[in-house]
Parts: sequence; C-alpha cells; structure tokens
Amino acid sequence: MTHTPARSHLTLGAGGEFDAIRAMLRVWGGQATGIGDDAAVMPLPEGESLVASTDASFEHVHFRREWLTPREIGARAAAAALSDLAAMAATPVGLLLALGVPAAWRIELDALAHGVGEVAAAALCPIVGGNVSRAGELSLTITVLGTSPHPLERSGARAGDALYVTGLLGGPGAALDALLRGATPRDVERARFASPRPRIAEGRWLAEHGARAAIDVSDGLVADAGHLAAASDVQVVLDLAALPCVEGIAPESAASSGEEYELLVAFPSDERPDTEEFRARFGIPLTAVGRVTAGRGVSLEGRSDRVDLPPGHDHLT
Amino acid sequence: MTHTPARSHLTLGAGGEFDAIRAMLRVWGGQATGIGDDAAVMPLPEGESLVASTDASFEHVHFRREWLTPREIGARAAAAALSDLAAMAATPVGLLLALGVPAAWRIELDALAHGVGEVAAAALCPIVGGNVSRAGELSLTITVLGTSPHPLERSGARAGDALYVTGLLGGPGAALDALLRGATPRDVERARFASPRPRIAEGRWLAEHGARAAIDVSDGLVADAGHLAAASDVQVVLDLAALPCVEGIAPESAASSGEEYELLVAFPSDERPDTEEFRARFGIPLTAVGRVTAGRGVSLEGRSDRVDLPPGHDHLT
Repeated sequence: MTHTPARSHLTLGAGGEFDAIRAMLRVWGGQATGIGDDAAVMPLPEGESLVASTDASFEHVHFRREWLTPREIGARAAAAALSDLAAMAATPVGLLLALGVPAAWRIELDALAHGVGEVAAAALCPIVGGNVSRAGELSLTITVLGTSPHPLERSGARAGDALYVTGLLGGPGAALDALLRGATPRDVERARFASPRPRIAEGRWLAEHGARAAIDVSDGLVADAGHLAAASDVQVVLDLAALPCVEGIAPESAASSGEEYELLVAFPSDERPDTEEFRARFGIPLTAVGRVTAGRGVSLEGRSDRVDLPPGHDHLT
Repeated sequence: MTHTPARSHLTLGAGGEFDAIRAMLRVWGGQATGIGDDAAVMPLPEGESLVASTDASFEHVHFRREWLTPREIGARAAAAALSDLAAMAATPVGLLLALGVPAAWRIELDALAHGVGEVAAAALCPIVGGNVSRAGELSLTITVLGTSPHPLERSGARAGDALYVTGLLGGPGAALDALLRGATPRDVERARFASPRPRIAEGRWLAEHGARAAIDVSDGLVADAGHLAAASDVQVVLDLAALPCVEGIAPESAASSGEEYELLVAFPSDERPDTEEFRARFGIPLTAVGRVTAGRGVSLEGRSDRVDLPPGHDHLT
C-alpha cells in the first residue's frame, strides 16, 4: 500500500469557511493531512499512473434528507467516488471534498464529515483538501486520486471473456422502491442502500489475478454492462438465473438496481479467478454472471420470455 | 512542460448525461483526453509530487447570471481553480469538471464548456474527466491536478523576505462595486473581473528564480497576506503606496479587491527577482509591495491614518 506521510496543517485564518474547515478537521483528526495550502501535495510512487475521478451528490437528485442520516449521506458520497478507483484497481492516495452548504445544513457538517471520514479511512485514503461554500441546496462533490501500475479500464473486455460480479445485488434498488412508495425497506436492503462500501481491495485483487476490464455497478448491472460493452466494442451476455441476489429479491430487480458499487469484471477464459479464495478473503461472493461475445449491447439469458428492464439511472434527464 | 499524451475517448452509452458530455467533448476536441472510463489515467513524471486542488463556483454565491456570459462563468471557474496550481508553481496535468445543471442552463452547456476549455488550453491543461448532474442551481466544481519537483507553499515565508505581487490590482473589486450598485464597470475593470488568467507560467518562473512562499490573491491582497502570515507564522508589512493599481483605482480599494488571481510571493532578501525580465517575459509587472517581519498578522504602511479595510471575501458567512 502507498501511504501519504502525515503533513501538519497550516494555521488557518479567520472566517466562516475556515471555521467550517476547522470543525471538520477536528472530526477527521490524523486522517486529514496538509489541509490549508492552496493545493494538496502528495508524493508519487515511481512508475505508476495517476488515476482521478470526480463524483457529485446533490440533495433532491441523488438523495433525500428524510431517507438518510447526514452521516450516511457523507458515507454514500465518499463510497460512490472511491468506487471509481476500485473499478480501476487503483490504490487511493487522496480525497478532496467540495461542499455546497445551505444554512439549515451547517449544524450537520460534523456528521457529514464523519460519514466521509469513515469510508475514506476504510479505504486507507487520506483527506487532502476541499472547498466549503454556502449554497441553496446541499451538494457533495468528491474527487478521488489514486495510483496504479496498470489501471483496469472498462475498454479491456474481449470476446470469449467470462464475467463476474462481486457481492449480492438488488438491495439498493429494493430499498429505493420501498422509500419511494412510503414503505420501510428491510434492514438488509437499507444497509446496502445507506452504507455501500467501495470494493477497493477487491478491485486490486481482481486485477492482480488476471481481470482485464472492470466497471463499478452504479447505474444498474444491465446499464453498466452496456457501458462496458460499448467501451470494449463487444456484446455482453448476462445470465439472469446466475445473478447473486440479496435474499428475496428477483434477478430482474437485481439487474437494474443502481448504486450497488459492486464490480463487474471480465477475465480471459484461460485465467478464471478462484472464487472460493475471493470469498474467504473478502467475505463476499464473486459470481460468474455471463460472458463476452462478438457483437454489441447487452443480451439477457436465463428466463423464458423477454422482459423490458427499466433503464439504469440517468443523472441528467 | 509535461504533456499528457492524447488517449482516444471510449464509446459512451445512451442517456442525458452522456448526451451532455458528448456535446462538451465536441467543444473541447483534442483538448479532452480519455473521457468515459470510471476514472482518468495520467502518466506521472518521476521524482515529482502531485499537487491537487478543488474549487467550487455557485450561482448567486460566486456569480450572477446577469453579470457574466456563460462562457465567462466557465472561464472564471477554471481560472480560479488553476490559480491554486499557479500559487504552488505546479505544472497542470489534468482538470476535472463537475457540473450541477438546472434545466434552464442546459442550452448553455456548450458556452460553459468553451469558457472552461479556453482557460485550460491557455494553461496547457488537458480536460480529463468530470461529472454532470441536474441540480437546482448552477454550480461548477473544478478539480485541478499538477506536478512539481518542489511545490511552492504559503508556509515558506521568513522574516527578512521581500514580498512581490504580479499584475495590477483593483479591477475585479471595482467591477463588482459597480455591478452591485447597478452601474456599468469600466472596460478595464470588467475585463479583469470577467476574464482572469491564472498565472501558471509566472508561478513556475518565480519558483525557479528563488521564491520560497506564494499564495494567489483570491480573497483580496490584505486577506491573503494574512493567510500567508498565519501559515508562515510571521508578520506581513504591506506598503499601500507601492501597490500596482489599475489606473484610477485607489490603493485602499486595490488592497481588498478579491478574485484577482495574481500571485503574492516571498523572496529571500539575497535573492531578489529581476522585475524587468519578468515584465519582458510575461507582459505584466512584478512589483515589490512589502516585507516579512517577525510577528503576526498584516500591517499596512504608506498612508497617514489607519483605515479599516473591509475583510476579504468569506465563502460561507
């Protein structure tokens, strides 16, 4: 693992922005390093590439306050961002948090910071910078930086590859369905919705064991398989009957459940991963769910009649 | 200069977010590289440190639509972010743009992208990633990444140092004053307000010629001198009579004008920069404006009676 050596914080000046930053630094303790200069500075491992991604969560668009605690909102935002590093098999080296904060949310800054901090800590990712601004609606825009000798890209799948997915699918989608109709999600569904975990260590293990393409499941398995197929210029065939579903959830629902932050990965046919070793190491399953063929788009097998699955989440329309 | 080699874009899937990204990619052309994977990948120069900063601009907080064209809004946001790399004497390697877009702003995405692109291009900074989301108010959160063998930090000033500032001060403050009272700013003021340029090449030149601390002037010279003093645990003495002001603007106004994106730099007394060479190379002045002493805070000289300057811009209160 690459660690950023701790740098002491600079003395910050006066003013509301700095007060807010100071409060968050108290929450983060030694987890935040070198905050207060114009920019964060991180040493770089030689011979590796820099991997960077930015991800935004807006109130009313990506979450509703009545569905999640402020701590969960922070944790989900950090997980969504770090999941992009997981999909690239990168080792995190820094997280930057830009907050847009309405007046009514200011007392929740500590809780938001706790949520971001706990997920960053689990990913061994220092918090290296950020920005705090007042705004009309709460937003968390998180940029994550990592390094990798060989980043795993979504364009690497080839005809003949086998496809695997980590974990169990369907929880976030079922929780969201319940919340949208005013019902209470089951605990197992709510936990997957409110407290996703980026598969950082899993992504690196998969890359080290022969994976040659990956994408994280953020829009839904079928939608993200479609992104992988388009990027790799191949067809993806998913076997619905094989999907690893949270107990009580139908494969059709699991296949369109978004914000899972599990990984969909492609392995060459002669380099299959040891799924038992994966489960023993990470405590979650790694399941063969389909294959890559020549062609385009996503084809579904494993059920008697074709059903139109709802499309994955679209962030803008 | 370090350049990121061009990487072709991945094929993007369907959906409103991707349509928006495709539209911006058309604007950026070869300036945007490798967009469409989970994260951007950049090669790294050996032996350098990574420098990263994130900066957010929110409608109603940081700008008003009636004051600026969409292209200027994009350009200003990019300049504000890149200015943090300038202050660290870093060479840009990538910019990530996270947009929160209300429905009424969707037709302006091209213009916003043009503005970001023109400033990034001038800084030789590729656009490597981003995020587009619908939102209730327009926001641009820009993360910039750079590298440097020796990043210039705001904590490096020492008693005895001489202080210099780039360019001419006062334009943005005067423009903002005019706009706030419903008047039309003079052209020279409006240009500095609407089209700031990050001093990327200037920052590297200053570091190569002996500067040992720097900060960019975003909150106002006095406020930012205060940040530098606090970070370096010194006192900063500014000579108001020496300030390089836009014609017709009083030093007191220039000293509190924010969003200048000029650089305030400290040089050891035995290593003064050649200000004539600087002006010949960059077309703007480099002016001695004060000194560093033991103590704390900012002291103002060069006028007969003490005036309370307005504090710099506070992003949260």
